[in-house]
Amino acid sequence: MDKIFYPGSVAVVGVSERPDNLAANIIHNLLAFGYGGDVHAVGLRAGQVHGIPILPSVRSLPEGVDLAVILTPAATVPGLLDACGQKGIRRAVIESGGFTEFSDAGRHLEEELIATARSWDMRIVGPNCISVINTENGLCLPFARIDPEATRQGPVSVLAQSGGVSITYLILLSEMGLGANKVVSMGNKADLNEIDYLTYLLADPATEVVCLYLEGIEQGRSLLELAASAPKPVIVQKANRGRASAQIAFSHTAALTNDDAVVDAALRQAGVARAQSFDEAVALAQGFTLPPVVGDDLLIVSRSGGHAVVAADAAEAHGFRLMPIPADFATQVRHMFRANVIAPTNPLDLGAIFDFNLYGRIVEASLDAVQPDALLLIHTYSSGPEAAVSEQLARHLGHLNRDLDKPLALCAFAQRDEVEGLRRATDLPIFIEIEAAVRALAASRDRHTRPARLRPLPSAPAERSEKVEALLSRQDVSTTDVALDLCSSFDIPVAEWAVVTDQESARIAATNLGYPVALKGLSPQVSHKSDAGLVVLDIADGEQLRAAFTAVSAALTEHSHHQAVRGVMVQRMVPGGRELIVGGKRDPSFGPVLMVGLGGIYVEALDDVVLRLAPLSREDAREMLEEMRGRRILHGMRGEPPMDLEAVVDVLLAVSNLLITCPEVVEIDINPLLALEKGAAAIDARAIVGSQRT
Amino acid sequence: MDKIFYPGSVAVVGVSERPDNLAANIIHNLLAFGYGGDVHAVGLRAGQVHGIPILPSVRSLPEGVDLAVILTPAATVPGLLDACGQKGIRRAVIESGGFTEFSDAGRHLEEELIATARSWDMRIVGPNCISVINTENGLCLPFARIDPEATRQGPVSVLAQSGGVSITYLILLSEMGLGANKVVSMGNKADLNEIDYLTYLLADPATEVVCLYLEGIEQGRSLLELAASAPKPVIVQKANRGRASAQIAFSHTAALTNDDAVVDAALRQAGVARAQSFDEAVALAQGFTLPPVVGDDLLIVSRSGGHAVVAADAAEAHGFRLMPIPADFATQVRHMFRANVIAPTNPLDLGAIFDFNLYGRIVEASLDAVQPDALLLIHTYSSGPEAAVSEQLARHLGHLNRDLDKPLALCAFAQRDEVEGLRRATDLPIFIEIEAAVRALAASRDRHTRPARLRPLPSAPAERSEKVEALLSRQDVSTTDVALDLCSSFDIPVAEWAVVTDQESARIAATNLGYPVALKGLSPQVSHKSDAGLVVLDIADGEQLRAAFTAVSAALTEHSHHQAVRGVMVQRMVPGGRELIVGGKRDPSFGPVLMVGLGGIYVEALDDVVLRLAPLSREDAREMLEEMRGRRILHGMRGEPPMDLEAVVDVLLAVSNLLITCPEVVEIDINPLLALEKGAAAIDARAIVGSQRT
Repeated sequence: MDKIFYPGSVAVVGVSERPDNLAANIIHNLLAFGYGGDVHAVGLRAGQVHGIPILPSVRSLPEGVDLAVILTPAATVPGLLDACGQKGIRRAVIESGGFTEFSDAGRHLEEELIATARSWDMRIVGPNCISVINTENGLCLPFARIDPEATRQGPVSVLAQSGGVSITYLILLSEMGLGANKVVSMGNKADLNEIDYLTYLLADPATEVVCLYLEGIEQGRSLLELAASAPKPVIVQKANRGRASAQIAFSHTAALTNDDAVVDAALRQAGVARAQSFDEAVALAQGFTLPPVVGDDLLIVSRSGGHAVVAADAAEAHGFRLMPIPADFATQVRHMFRANVIAPTNPLDLGAIFDFNLYGRIVEASLDAVQPDALLLIHTYSSGPEAAVSEQLARHLGHLNRDLDKPLALCAFAQRDEVEGLRRATDLPIFIEIEAAVRALAASRDRHTRPARLRPLPSAPAERSEKVEALLSRQDVSTTDVALDLCSSFDIPVAEWAVVTDQESARIAATNLGYPVALKGLSPQVSHKSDAGLVVLDIADGEQLRAAFTAVSAALTEHSHHQAVRGVMVQRMVPGGRELIVGGKRDPSFGPVLMVGLGGIYVEALDDVVLRLAPLSREDAREMLEEMRGRRILHGMRGEPPMDLEAVVDVLLAVSNLLITCPEVVEIDINPLLALEKGAAAIDARAIVGSQRT
Repeated sequence: MDKIFYPGSVAVVGVSERPDNLAANIIHNLLAFGYGGDVHAVGLRAGQVHGIPILPSVRSLPEGVDLAVILTPAATVPGLLDACGQKGIRRAVIESGGFTEFSDAGRHLEEELIATARSWDMRIVGPNCISVINTENGLCLPFARIDPEATRQGPVSVLAQSGGVSITYLILLSEMGLGANKVVSMGNKADLNEIDYLTYLLADPATEVVCLYLEGIEQGRSLLELAASAPKPVIVQKANRGRASAQIAFSHTAALTNDDAVVDAALRQAGVARAQSFDEAVALAQGFTLPPVVGDDLLIVSRSGGHAVVAADAAEAHGFRLMPIPADFATQVRHMFRANVIAPTNPLDLGAIFDFNLYGRIVEASLDAVQPDALLLIHTYSSGPEAAVSEQLARHLGHLNRDLDKPLALCAFAQRDEVEGLRRATDLPIFIEIEAAVRALAASRDRHTRPARLRPLPSAPAERSEKVEALLSRQDVSTTDVALDLCSSFDIPVAEWAVVTDQESARIAATNLGYPVALKGLSPQVSHKSDAGLVVLDIADGEQLRAAFTAVSAALTEHSHHQAVRGVMVQRMVPGGRELIVGGKRDPSFGPVLMVGLGGIYVEALDDVVLRLAPLSREDAREMLEEMRGRRILHGMRGEPPMDLEAVVDVLLAVSNLLITCPEVVEIDINPLLALEKGAAAIDARAIVGSQRT
C-alpha cells in the first residue's frame, strides 16, 4: 500500500495531445504539485504533454515503474493491466468508468480486470474513481485539474466512495485552514476497499484524523471494529440513507443500501462521529485537532450577547452544562479592568470591553477560575484596526491551547478575508458557525468520555446444549412454543404454558396453570396470530375456555392448509407490567443486532426502538433502555412502582447471547416481553432460522 | 418611520477626538458609505473627526435635524434626549447600554428616557443597540466600523434583537451574493419594537424578504398576524430556546423567554419559515428570491454521483419526490449528445459529459421533459478553463430562471474565489451546501402550497349562555364535574355521571348509569386524583361499589383539609377507544393555544403533543391529529377499526371555541378524552379560571 501513496515513479496510461484529453490533466496535476518521482505518459499517438513524451505502449515504459494510472475506455483496461503486469508493475489506479456501475457487460469486464490483477499479484485502486492525492509528496492523480493554491497540507485524510465528494472535502478542508493529508476516491472497490485504506491511514504517521464518505458499507462489522480499536478519531458521512438515493448510489459506484438505523447505532457503538454534511464533517475534524474535551462543563465567552444566546442554545442541545462563574472571579475581573463591565454569567459577555488585548488575559483568568472542560470564544470584529489585534488574539489562544492542553474553540464572525487572516496567523482551528463549533466540541467529548464499546464477535462457535441443538433443527422453530422454548433455554423467563390438542387436556392444563389463561393456536404459517383469530386472552373460567378452544381450533384448521395441526397453547396470563418488544436480527453488513422498544400497538405507531450490535455488555443493555423515548413508562410514573429494569437487561443479554451462539437464527422477536415490578416474562416469540424466513 | 431610514440629516452625539471614541466610528461609517445627507457631531470637547467639526452641545446644532444618534453614558441620555426635543428633533437612535438589561437603576433610566421621548412625541430606536443601516442611502449608524467593500446592496432586510447578530447577517447576506437592504438592531425596544419595524419593512418597496432574529417575542400574536397577512416572505431565527440561554438573553437585551414549542407551532401556522442558524436563514432568503416552488416534484441534476446521492437524501428528508425521467427523454439526450452517456435517472448524473456548454441545454430539455416543480443543479468544477465556462452556465441558468419562471437552484462546489466569480456573473443565488439548497426549496414550497392559516382573534367578546356564566363564576370550577359541565356546555360529549354524597345514592346512581362505573372523589385541591386514592375504576357491581365508596370517601376527607366535601362522582365507564389528551392554555405572548396528544401515561412518557394557536379551523384540527407521531394508533392498526377522527376534530374545535369565548379560562385539560369507533367522550377534565392556578 505504501507504494500507492508514495510511489517512486508513475506511468499515466491514456494520454494524448488532444485538448480534451483527461489523462493529460493527471500529468498536469503531478507537475503542478511538484511530485518528485519520475512521470511517464503512455498513449496511442506519439507526442508530448506538459513536456513529458507520450510513449506508444506500456511495453515501451522503462523497468521499475511503481504505479500505473489508467484512464482508457473500459474494454481496453484488462489488456493494459496485463501489459503492466508483464512490465513488473504491481500497483494500478484505474480511473476509467464503464464497469459494474454501468452495465452487465461492465460487470464482466470488472471480473476480468480482477482476475488479471490477481494473476500478477497486483493491487488495484478503483475502477471508476478519480483516485489518489497525497499532499506530502505531490502525488495528485485526479483527472480533473486541481489548483495547488487551493489545497493546504494538513492532518486530515479522506476516504470517499465518490470522486466529486473527495475533491469537495479536499477544498473544504483546505479553505477551513485545516488541510488534507491523503485523499482517496475508492470508486467500485473491485480490489482495495475501505478496510484496506482505513487500515493504512490509521497506521499512517502523517494522518491524525480520518474522514470517510460512504454510500454503502459492505463489511460494516470489520470496518467498525477497526475504527473502534484505533487511537485516531474517525468521522463517517454515510449518505444513501433513503429509498430515493439508493438507485443513483448504485448506478454511480455500485453501492449497496444499508439500514440507516443500524448504521447509526453501529457508528455510535464504535465511537465514530457521524456527520450529516460535508461542512459538519470538516467541523468535527477541526474539533478533533484540539486537545480532548473530557467532560460536560463548557464556558462560553462572547463579544456579542446575541451570539452568546445562540451558543447557549447549542450548548444545551448538545448536552453541555454552562458552569456558574464564581463571584470572586467577577470581582477579580473588575479589578483587572474597568468597574462593572462584566457580569459574572456564563456565557460571559465581553461586549463592553473594546480592548481585544485583554481578551486573552480574560480567557486565561476565566479558565483558571472556572476550570471548564472546554471553552468557546465567539469573536466578532470588523476589518481595519480590529483585524490586526484579532490576529494577535488568535495567536495567543493558539499558545494557550497548547500550553494548557485545554480545548479552546474559536468561532470568528468577521469578513471572509479577515477570517483567512486569522487562519494564517495560527494553527488553531477557526470555526465560522456556532452550531458547528459546539457540535465539534460535543463530538470530542463523546469520543473521550464514552469510549468505543463495539465488542468483537467470537472467532470460534460457542458450545450449545443438546436442547438448543434439537430446537434449532426443528422444522417448526418459528412457532410460538418452540421459539419460547428456545428463549427459555437461554434463561429468558417465559409465561408458563402447555400444548394441548383437545378440550379435556385444555381444561386440565388451565386448571393446573390457574385462571385467567390465554389460548393460542400454534401454526408456523401465520405470523400475526391475533389477526387470524388464533388468540383468545383473559379466559376467566372453564366455560369461557370451552368456547375459546372451539373458536381457536376452527381458526387453526382454516389457516393450516392441509398441514398437520400442531395444537393449541394454553398459557398463564401474567398480570400487570409494561409491554416491550425485544428482538434480534442479523444485518448483512453489521452482523447480529439487538432491538428494544415499546411493545403492543405503540411499537408500530411510534417507532420508538433502540438498536445495538451484539454482543452486548450489561452497560450497553442499560443504555438501550435509557435511550428509549418512552423509557419513563418503565420508571414508574405518577407514583406507580418502577418496573424491574435489570430483569429486562438480563433478557437483552440473553437474546444477545442467543444470536451469538446460534448463527443460524436470522431473526428472533419476543413480542411482548412483559417488564414486571419484579422480573420479566416473555409472552410470545417468533424465531426464523436459516432460510425459513416467511 | 421613513425619517429613521431616510433622514435628510443626522446628528451624532457623544463624539470625541480620542482614538477609542466609538461615536466617531458612526461618523466614519456615514462617510465611508457615502451617506448623502448632512452629518453633524456633538461632543464635550471641541475638535473634529473625519473633517466634521464637533459641536459643544445639542443646542448648538442647526435647526431641522431629522435624526439624533446618541452614544453617551446611560445617565446622560434622558437629558440629551430632552435637549433634542427642544431642538425639534423627533427621532433618536440610542446606542448606549446600561439600561433595563443592566440593573434596576438602568430600568429607571429607561423609564425616564421613554417619558422624555413621549413628552416630545419622539420615536426611539434602542437603547442598547448598534442601530440602523440602510444600504439604499448609505445610512450606516453602528458604532463598530463597517467595511463598505464587505457589504452588498440587495433585497433582504434584517431585524435583529442583537447588534452583533445584525452585523453577522449583513456580512453573510453580502458574502452569499444576495445583499442586504435595511438592517436594524432593535436593542431593548423601549419604544419602537419588532411590530413597528416589521410593519415598515413589509411596506418598504426595496425590501423583498425580511429576516428576524429574536430572543424573546413579546406580542407574538400581533407579530405573527402581521407576518401571516404579508405578501413578502418572513424568516425568523428565534434563539433563547432553553434554560441556559434565558439568563444571558435577558441580561443583554432584556428579553423574555417563550415556550419554544408554542413558538414553533405559531410560526408554522403563520407561514413563517424558522431558521435554526444564521447560515440557514440566509439560505432560506436565497430560496425566496427564486420563482416560487409550487409542488413536491424535484429534479436533481449533478456532475458528481456522490453529490447526487447526498441531494437525494436531503430531498427525501424534506418531502420532495424525485420524479422519474421519461424514457424518451433519455433517447433524446442520447441523440443530442453522445451515445449512452446519461442514464435516465433522477438524480440525472452528468458525470460523463465534460462540455459544460451542454449543461444549460440539458437543463432546459429536462425541464421540458420532466416538468418538475423545482430543479437543483449541483455543479462541481475546478479552477482554470472550467471556471469561465461555469460562469457562462450560471448566466444561462439565470436567464432560464427568469424566462421560464421555474425555480432553478444552483449549488456550486468549487474554490471560494470561483464561487465569487459565479456571483459576479449572475444574480441567481448560488448555494454552497446541498442541504441548504434543498431546505430553501422546501421552505419556498411550504410557503406557496401551505398558505398561512393564523386566524385573527375576535375583536369583541362572544355571547355566552347563562349556564356558562354560572359555571365560570363558581369557586370550584377546577373540580372534575364542573369542568366537564363546562365542556358539555360547548357540546363536547362527556361520559355521563352523577354526584352523590352517600352510599345509597351512589348505588342508585350506579344502577341508573349501568355497571361498570367509576368513582371519583371531588376535590378542587387535588390535581392528581389517582395518586391521592380518589379514583376507583371498573367497579363491576354493588359490592365493589360499596367498598370503593368507603375508600374514596376516606381519601376525600383526608385531602380536603377542613373544607366542605363536595361529594363523589359516579361515572359510567366507556368501553374501548384510545386515550388522548386535549388541552388549551393561554400563552402570555401568543394567546390561546390548543394541544392534543396521546393520553394516559404515554402523553407524559413520550411528549407526543401537537400545538396550534386558536381559533382553529377544521383543517387545522385535522392537521393536528395527522402531526401526532402516534397518529397510527387512531387509524386502526392490525385490522382494528379506526377511531372516529372527526369526533376528535369536533372536540378540538369546541375547546378552541371555549378558549375564545371564555378569556378567563387560563387553562383547560380533558384527560383522558376517549376517541371511540363512533364519537368521543371526555372522561375527566380540569379548568383553571382567572387566578385560580394551583
